[in-house]
Amino acid sequence: MKKYVYLFKEGNANMRDILGGKGANLAEMTNLGLPVPYGFTVSTEACTQYYEDGRKINDEILGQIYEALDVIEKQAGKKFGDPENPFLVSVRSGARASMPGMMDTILNLGLNDQTVVGLAKLTNNERFAYDSYRRFIMMFSDVVMEISKLKFDAVFDEVKKKNNCKLDTELNAENLKLITVKFKEIYQQEKGTEFPQDPREQLIEAVKAVFRSWDNPRADVYRRMNDIPYSWGTAVNVQSMVFGNMGNDCGTGVAFTRNPSTGEKALYGEFLMNAQGEDVVAGIRTPSQISELQQSQPAVYKQFVRIANTLEQHYRDMQDMEFTIERGKLFMLQTRNGKRTASAALKIAVDLVNEGLITKEEALLKIEPKSLDALLHPTFEPNALKKAKPIAKGLPASPGAACGRVYFNASDCIDASKRGEKVVLVRLETSPEDIEGMYAAEGVLTARGGMTSHAAVVARGMGTCCVSGCSEVMILEKSRKFTTTSGLSFNEGDWISLDGSTGNVYGEALPTIEAQVSGNFATIMQWADEVRQLKVRTNADNPHDAATAVSFGAEGIGLCRTEHMFFDENRIPAVREMIVSKDENSRRRALSKLLPMQRSDFKGIYKAMGSRPVTIRFLDPPLHEFLPSEDNDIKALAKEMGLTFEELKLTVTSLREMNPMLGHRGCRLSITYPEIAEMQTRAVIEAAIETRQETGISVVPEIMVPLVGDVKELEFVKDVIDRTAKEVMAERNVEIPYVVGTMIEVPRAALTADKIAEQARFFSFGTNDLSQMTFGLSRDDAGKFLDDYYKKRIYEFDPFARVDQEGVGRLMKLAAELGRKTRPDIKLGICGEHGGDPSSIEFCHQIGLNYVSCSPFRVPIARLAAAQAAIRNPRD
Amino acid sequence: MKKYVYLFKEGNANMRDILGGKGANLAEMTNLGLPVPYGFTVSTEACTQYYEDGRKINDEILGQIYEALDVIEKQAGKKFGDPENPFLVSVRSGARASMPGMMDTILNLGLNDQTVVGLAKLTNNERFAYDSYRRFIMMFSDVVMEISKLKFDAVFDEVKKKNNCKLDTELNAENLKLITVKFKEIYQQEKGTEFPQDPREQLIEAVKAVFRSWDNPRADVYRRMNDIPYSWGTAVNVQSMVFGNMGNDCGTGVAFTRNPSTGEKALYGEFLMNAQGEDVVAGIRTPSQISELQQSQPAVYKQFVRIANTLEQHYRDMQDMEFTIERGKLFMLQTRNGKRTASAALKIAVDLVNEGLITKEEALLKIEPKSLDALLHPTFEPNALKKAKPIAKGLPASPGAACGRVYFNASDCIDASKRGEKVVLVRLETSPEDIEGMYAAEGVLTARGGMTSHAAVVARGMGTCCVSGCSEVMILEKSRKFTTTSGLSFNEGDWISLDGSTGNVYGEALPTIEAQVSGNFATIMQWADEVRQLKVRTNADNPHDAATAVSFGAEGIGLCRTEHMFFDENRIPAVREMIVSKDENSRRRALSKLLPMQRSDFKGIYKAMGSRPVTIRFLDPPLHEFLPSEDNDIKALAKEMGLTFEELKLTVTSLREMNPMLGHRGCRLSITYPEIAEMQTRAVIEAAIETRQETGISVVPEIMVPLVGDVKELEFVKDVIDRTAKEVMAERNVEIPYVVGTMIEVPRAALTADKIAEQARFFSFGTNDLSQMTFGLSRDDAGKFLDDYYKKRIYEFDPFARVDQEGVGRLMKLAAELGRKTRPDIKLGICGEHGGDPSSIEFCHQIGLNYVSCSPFRVPIARLAAAQAAIRNPRD
Repeated sequence: MKKYVYLFKEGNANMRDILGGKGANLAEMTNLGLPVPYGFTVSTEACTQYYEDGRKINDEILGQIYEALDVIEKQAGKKFGDPENPFLVSVRSGARASMPGMMDTILNLGLNDQTVVGLAKLTNNERFAYDSYRRFIMMFSDVVMEISKLKFDAVFDEVKKKNNCKLDTELNAENLKLITVKFKEIYQQEKGTEFPQDPREQLIEAVKAVFRSWDNPRADVYRRMNDIPYSWGTAVNVQSMVFGNMGNDCGTGVAFTRNPSTGEKALYGEFLMNAQGEDVVAGIRTPSQISELQQSQPAVYKQFVRIANTLEQHYRDMQDMEFTIERGKLFMLQTRNGKRTASAALKIAVDLVNEGLITKEEALLKIEPKSLDALLHPTFEPNALKKAKPIAKGLPASPGAACGRVYFNASDCIDASKRGEKVVLVRLETSPEDIEGMYAAEGVLTARGGMTSHAAVVARGMGTCCVSGCSEVMILEKSRKFTTTSGLSFNEGDWISLDGSTGNVYGEALPTIEAQVSGNFATIMQWADEVRQLKVRTNADNPHDAATAVSFGAEGIGLCRTEHMFFDENRIPAVREMIVSKDENSRRRALSKLLPMQRSDFKGIYKAMGSRPVTIRFLDPPLHEFLPSEDNDIKALAKEMGLTFEELKLTVTSLREMNPMLGHRGCRLSITYPEIAEMQTRAVIEAAIETRQETGISVVPEIMVPLVGDVKELEFVKDVIDRTAKEVMAERNVEIPYVVGTMIEVPRAALTADKIAEQARFFSFGTNDLSQMTFGLSRDDAGKFLDDYYKKRIYEFDPFARVDQEGVGRLMKLAAELGRKTRPDIKLGICGEHGGDPSSIEFCHQIGLNYVSCSPFRVPIARLAAAQAAIRNPRD
Repeated sequence: MKKYVYLFKEGNANMRDILGGKGANLAEMTNLGLPVPYGFTVSTEACTQYYEDGRKINDEILGQIYEALDVIEKQAGKKFGDPENPFLVSVRSGARASMPGMMDTILNLGLNDQTVVGLAKLTNNERFAYDSYRRFIMMFSDVVMEISKLKFDAVFDEVKKKNNCKLDTELNAENLKLITVKFKEIYQQEKGTEFPQDPREQLIEAVKAVFRSWDNPRADVYRRMNDIPYSWGTAVNVQSMVFGNMGNDCGTGVAFTRNPSTGEKALYGEFLMNAQGEDVVAGIRTPSQISELQQSQPAVYKQFVRIANTLEQHYRDMQDMEFTIERGKLFMLQTRNGKRTASAALKIAVDLVNEGLITKEEALLKIEPKSLDALLHPTFEPNALKKAKPIAKGLPASPGAACGRVYFNASDCIDASKRGEKVVLVRLETSPEDIEGMYAAEGVLTARGGMTSHAAVVARGMGTCCVSGCSEVMILEKSRKFTTTSGLSFNEGDWISLDGSTGNVYGEALPTIEAQVSGNFATIMQWADEVRQLKVRTNADNPHDAATAVSFGAEGIGLCRTEHMFFDENRIPAVREMIVSKDENSRRRALSKLLPMQRSDFKGIYKAMGSRPVTIRFLDPPLHEFLPSEDNDIKALAKEMGLTFEELKLTVTSLREMNPMLGHRGCRLSITYPEIAEMQTRAVIEAAIETRQETGISVVPEIMVPLVGDVKELEFVKDVIDRTAKEVMAERNVEIPYVVGTMIEVPRAALTADKIAEQARFFSFGTNDLSQMTFGLSRDDAGKFLDDYYKKRIYEFDPFARVDQEGVGRLMKLAAELGRKTRPDIKLGICGEHGGDPSSIEFCHQIGLNYVSCSPFRVPIARLAAAQAAIRNPRD
């Protein structure tokens, strides 16, 4: 018989695949002898089985749950449904990877019309008992039965109003009793049955609700953003209730062993006396600093500090803990490696090494490469910041600087972002429904909630700037405006700026500046460089980007797109002149105008890169991209070019393609018009010669031919390049080295890479196009139906963000093997956007590529990811 | 030292790779003791070497040529350039595969100002000597030095006119002497040097010209049409001249051992007395039937008949021979397996088996599968033909019936054909420049030339209907009209019809009827069916095509495209209603209108196919294909549909895609709108149930899901299909079998075929899309640049006509292996257009597919090609 249910004492921290993170850590703490309320975990395998059985909990699992329940009832000395001594539990989800705010929790389960009376007697606190019961009814109705919370809020507010109460705590037992009656009525109306009175029925429904919540759209979005497979499932933790809301010697809180924003080594957190956990997380009341606990509960504080230290030493990482104080007694409800900002992650990792707790390699593995992105975001330009006056101040919940137009709900944010606007999401408080909107936003501003509120936790996880708990703004979500205490008013679309490191809010668009790699960041990068085997290059098309990338540690350019230079407004006239040319001579005349421009582009880039290698890709896009498509624009351009409308229209029409992705582009252009490749070769080689003469830098240009699918295409273009290079060198009476290689971006190129390697000195995987062609999926068009693919779980991740190892990766591996078979010293790299994605970088390491190339701002991420890949997958 | 030059006596018929077809057969005839003028062959390897050396003949090869020359001079007892006893040779190309009319010939080489005098003395025929010289100068200038023939023709015609000569033969020696002088002047003017007087220089230049001609654009076109690799190169045959134009006891001719049009066993051919070969081939004079030689030269005729029989017995195939009679002595200049019409090929093959000369398998290998196409072309509707009166009659040069609009040159034909017109090419006589035009035309009509003229030979090779030598029409190519002797006049664009089997020309568009498989054709098909291992299915979307295909031997439907039914004008309104639906319910309403239509389609097809398997592909194209794109059409349709223009325009715009090939189509539609798959499943299953009830036919529908790239896509759609099929069967209270499979047309499907086979009972390779995606080449757009690819020899064949075995084929092989690994009994087929291409069929046999599927008219071709594949590649 398979084991689906584990008592806490039966598990340990290594069992997170089966027990989920929360369950495994509760088990570990139990076995460490820490004060953990009794409980058990229903495993992730039970969740998988639940879905396999058509969303049913089978009898075997039910039996094991009841068996475990018996054990913990005995341990607690209480019984489910016993009016004399009722046993109450919490039911909480816990997946293998932390999914904050995604899954749902139910407290006080076991209460019913009888046990609430028992609880009142037992605690001698009728108010507490009915407060617990009304919370439970609402939570169960909302989370388990999916009845809108608003209906309950309305009743609750009505009773408060009737009794002239401002705070929830002002309600007395009678009020609360009335509320429970009214809540049960709502349940009856909505569900057509009475609120379930059998605690076992409550429990099983709650477990099912947790399993179900694994499948909700918010969980899908979070999983996709965090590469969590759907197949993992979630575990369910059932634990004896301890109460933080039984009176003023009770409380609940969360704390970190180090500051999750800065990494500073000091206990950091918040607590609320006479409250349940939900009050802290939801951010409805503003909690006290953890240090204040020392005054109010010195013994508990001392014990908590000791436990925190034990846990950090035990897990050798910063811990994020939840605790409850019940009548002066401390209970640990959770510990986990704490989420942290990127800069905190760096500091903690460096500190832990310095403290001798972990090795450098362990330190490198502790940092999520993607999180570095936050450090590479801009900060405000200091002079502008000096002059700017904040319009409000909130909590510095997630660092960074954000500047954008104000929107008041997630979907407006997403829409505006799709239109290309920079947006800031402004909300009273955020909830899991807002995640996609937060993802689209530059920053998030909330009026309520602390540093551990939903908004703060999620924003930090995303690396998005966030100011939370900003009570100085009054937000009118429905009217789509907010006002400040100083009387300013902002409407949808107005610009504001947020400083996530200070909590300041500015009523204007502030200029920003780029980040730098220094301090702990530099230390970690240095450690990463010591172990990684992949080189990291950058995709840069101009000297500025090249210089930025070098400052971030780029070791060369892996992709310099020459067409970007062609779109410049000073150049596009010559490009267009070339395109409308009717014969080779006029084409050559136009190209000769472009030559000096391209040459000077390349010189600028060579100089920025010093002696680092520079890979230059020849003209790639279809020519129609350089011409307008609308008749009005064609008319205007025709006039400018001295052509008739009809002439130019004819050119535009003749260049129109059904499927431009698969059309006349890449090396196909150089095959039809070899003079384009000639001009580009001339520019590349002349620039290299002149750079050497002017600066002494020995440039070895790497010329990359795009869209090759057959070795003969490469052979043809390489002949043009070699012939032209020879001519240039003869003219200048100097010899310089250069190499010719190709993109591997057409499936056929990968399939025939052995032949292509006969002509190519290097391969660079163009995984953007390779993915499009291998999937038969146009990235420009897929947006319309990919959502259906995610919803129906056909794709679990975006193949354009992460290399599809099963399909596209198979082609890459094949191409790498075939290429090396023909030319053992062939240089292999990747220059698609996947080059900056950590999981794709690990794959590149595994198949033995020599380098990855990514956008300048991803270079540090790639350096760390490459280091992690090397640590996880040692090469021989 | 490598051997580049072979005396005829050193070779044999098996050496065609090195000696070319002509050279190998000359060697074989020499060794058979037949009267072949002495000679030698410069090998195809010398040609390849010539290109490798940068179009130079290296000293080694030169040395071997001169050495061989010495030997044949001795054999002939004459010497190059000897004014007393000059040695003259012919220089002719000869590639491994016959390339009629593609390569060039030079006769009388060795003549110069001295040797012409010697030849005159020696033959005592000054007229003959100068006639030979003027021919040589012109041929050498034209073919070797590329001086326009027109310049020589002008001089020639001027002299004729001045001397009041109508026929060339009326010119006397003095006239011809004058002409040689004037010809040499033209040469001097054009080339700036004197006409070369050194026979060795003439020879080497001529050899180079043959090598060069391998590289000309016409040769490229022919090679591409006939799958001949460029790398083969051509050999050059140098042979002692014998003269058919030395007087009236001289002559030259070509003959076949059987009738190349009908296959009838009887010597068939033509000859001209006092003429050189070029006169016959060019069709300038109309020759006599070979049988007439019996009267004029009985001994020669007897000898020739004996030789013809010897050769046919020796080669065990119908022979096409060239001969020359010099002063009553017969010389064999060439033999080869004769080109023949498809029906002749069938008759000859069956007859040779019946005569005991070859086996059935050999017979099958003798027939070019593509040539059967000619037999599958329509013939005229007999009643219409009975009433029709010919406006002229020519030679029945290539059988079949053609009907089209008249065009007077190749490029007009090509243009009109591209516009979708059916065209007939009408020319005085055709030349190699016309090949592409002939390819585009339904039929060819020439005023000059015999049954072995260029037009006749090439048309038969192509399977294009041709009437040649039609002297009853006067063609004015420049004025783009022709008139008949009866006074009728036809202009460009007028309709005519040609009967290639009778030579009749009709001045109207005659209706045609389809071909049938009977007689020898049926015999050969039966033999093919006995040996082939691949099944042959058809691509058919309606009962009529299905029935046609069955009559041609189709064993099932491999591809029934359901969308073709949707485009029907009675259905498209419901399709459009579905597309503009704003929600699932209205979509379902529209689909319910389509259901009975689809069901009745499928019933019709099932009934046409009887118990044969039918594979039905679900909706594939992007939905925008069902809507108009121009504003005017949108306006009209909106009115019709009761929508505003803006509403419909919005739908059209939202469906517009950048790359529709890679867009929202195929299974992606069923994933977004599962109700489409539901409706189609319902139609398929209901039709099968009703067909069984009505006819007793047990249909096992094979449902094919298109564009799958990931097993989960197939799994999702298969779930919909299975669920719906179950519902239908429950409703009808009957169980019927069906299978679900998928197209393999996305590279990723091939790469992950092991997983996909978990869900698919069959794979059908959609090689159209698979080729497009593997090459990254849109078929709709490639036309613009593929010509450059052919010209620059990057592609040697059209990857959409013939499976690219190196790239696409590699994916197919992989998918077949992976598919069978998961599911050993998986059924594998192909349904792209390649399914009717013989070389692709051979590849499908090699990788072990179960069937090919092609258009109805290609079914017999596929049956034969599959048989040939099985004979050439025996499976275990």
